[in-house]
Amino acid sequence: MRLARARMHDTNHVVLVRLEGDDAVVLAEESAHVAADVLREAVHSGIDLAGRGATRVAIDDLTLLAPVRHPGRILCAALNYGTHAAETGRRAPSEPTLFAKFSGSLVDPHGTVVVRDADLAGIDYEGELAVVIGRRARDVDERDALSHVLGYTIANDISARAQQRADRQWWRAKGSDGFCPLGPVIVTADELGDASGLTIRTTVNGTLRQDGMTTDLIFSVPSLLAFASRFVTLEPGDVLLTGTPSGVGVAMDPPCFLEHGDQVEVAVDGIGRLRSTIELR
Amino acid sequence: MRLARARMHDTNHVVLVRLEGDDAVVLAEESAHVAADVLREAVHSGIDLAGRGATRVAIDDLTLLAPVRHPGRILCAALNYGTHAAETGRRAPSEPTLFAKFSGSLVDPHGTVVVRDADLAGIDYEGELAVVIGRRARDVDERDALSHVLGYTIANDISARAQQRADRQWWRAKGSDGFCPLGPVIVTADELGDASGLTIRTTVNGTLRQDGMTTDLIFSVPSLLAFASRFVTLEPGDVLLTGTPSGVGVAMDPPCFLEHGDQVEVAVDGIGRLRSTIELR
Repeated sequence: MRLARARMHDTNHVVLVRLEGDDAVVLAEESAHVAADVLREAVHSGIDLAGRGATRVAIDDLTLLAPVRHPGRILCAALNYGTHAAETGRRAPSEPTLFAKFSGSLVDPHGTVVVRDADLAGIDYEGELAVVIGRRARDVDERDALSHVLGYTIANDISARAQQRADRQWWRAKGSDGFCPLGPVIVTADELGDASGLTIRTTVNGTLRQDGMTTDLIFSVPSLLAFASRFVTLEPGDVLLTGTPSGVGVAMDPPCFLEHGDQVEVAVDGIGRLRSTIELR
Repeated sequence: MRLARARMHDTNHVVLVRLEGDDAVVLAEESAHVAADVLREAVHSGIDLAGRGATRVAIDDLTLLAPVRHPGRILCAALNYGTHAAETGRRAPSEPTLFAKFSGSLVDPHGTVVVRDADLAGIDYEGELAVVIGRRARDVDERDALSHVLGYTIANDISARAQQRADRQWWRAKGSDGFCPLGPVIVTADELGDASGLTIRTTVNGTLRQDGMTTDLIFSVPSLLAFASRFVTLEPGDVLLTGTPSGVGVAMDPPCFLEHGDQVEVAVDGIGRLRSTIELR
């Protein structure tokens, strides 16, 4: 199944849909709650995502949004591709290196990464495979971990390299408003499989910058989930970013950071393309 | 005003109350939404916190809970007391050093800090004054920052010193499940004033460990809010931990960490006492 959160052009309502060819089956509508998140609500309440749905509309009558709006957490793996660890001059870690992004950093597909503060410098992309949790995970075994996954989507772990280098903690280097484009769809685990052999490519203004394979993950998705769930209880709707392959701007010689107006696209086999425009204020 | 989130003994419902002597005025009831948080909802929708309320009950018929349950973010200041910076051997920073805790780390007053994973080591307390946001804050001026504050409460920034030292990022050292006791009440800014001259004391099993004053904050509450809001939009219900004074266990000679069964209490003038029991699994 391919699931998406979307705004309907006619009613302006936000809905959870299942995409079928050029159509979208409306499964649920987002509530007016302050932390409303139709994906999180639907998964938490166990609605039948394969079910009939209330309405069928043309995809052209929808704007796709970030598939999750208010996840309980966005947990991210750093240095999780051998090629990326090598280009940053660091050794591959012996256990996962994780960090957090704020849910307030989420950006819709085809949205704009607005870098608000002029002090944020060295703005860079990191194309990543993202995992969306479908069932509570706490102290899960690696062999059982994938049964807690709803599906997979695409993320761009936007980073301000100056602050990532200078600050002890990455709250603004990685978590500033606008630093987490996500989407456009969630492909469920039963359709995508174990997500271990996917190509992930990032382009900037059409030029290929990252060309990796999820087979190169140092810590697999099950391994990351098992490790994280020893310390934090992963809830439906939580998002895990799995790390980025080599080819980031900061590792180029000379470093090449994003500029105002740049178009960044992260493409993952079988999921789609996540496009963003960079706006430096 | 003194506000609290509480569970009513007779109905088991979670409510937002205003405390008046031995009574509690019920202002709103928590919805059944997956990310329900009656404080966040009430502030976001602008209900009259000084209003009459539906019901009046005896405080004895309530159990006080963490005043916020699903904040959009918990942002924390590190090294924000000169005395604490000195005891850790670090220079006071030239701009605020911030980090994040997951909302999943929250623990109710009189609750138990369950340290789930045996690898988490060097468990320590940090008594802190916490700020709860009442109005969206984005690029706010220091002079205007306090108008975005709903009020103040107490936090214990539980830390696993082994992981804080070993890990690059503090997601589990500071953000593991159970690492953020919060409460018991929010005292509104109009009642507490600018919170700059409060005594903050932490005891372990009745022995005084931290005895600080918020006058010693390196970066004041307005200064922290102005700085943070340049990078992230602070939303109603968001929580800011302002840092801890000297006297943490890791700085004692020899270091003295929390043990199974320890009772930790953080007391702040004019707010109350936040008690927690430590459970090491």
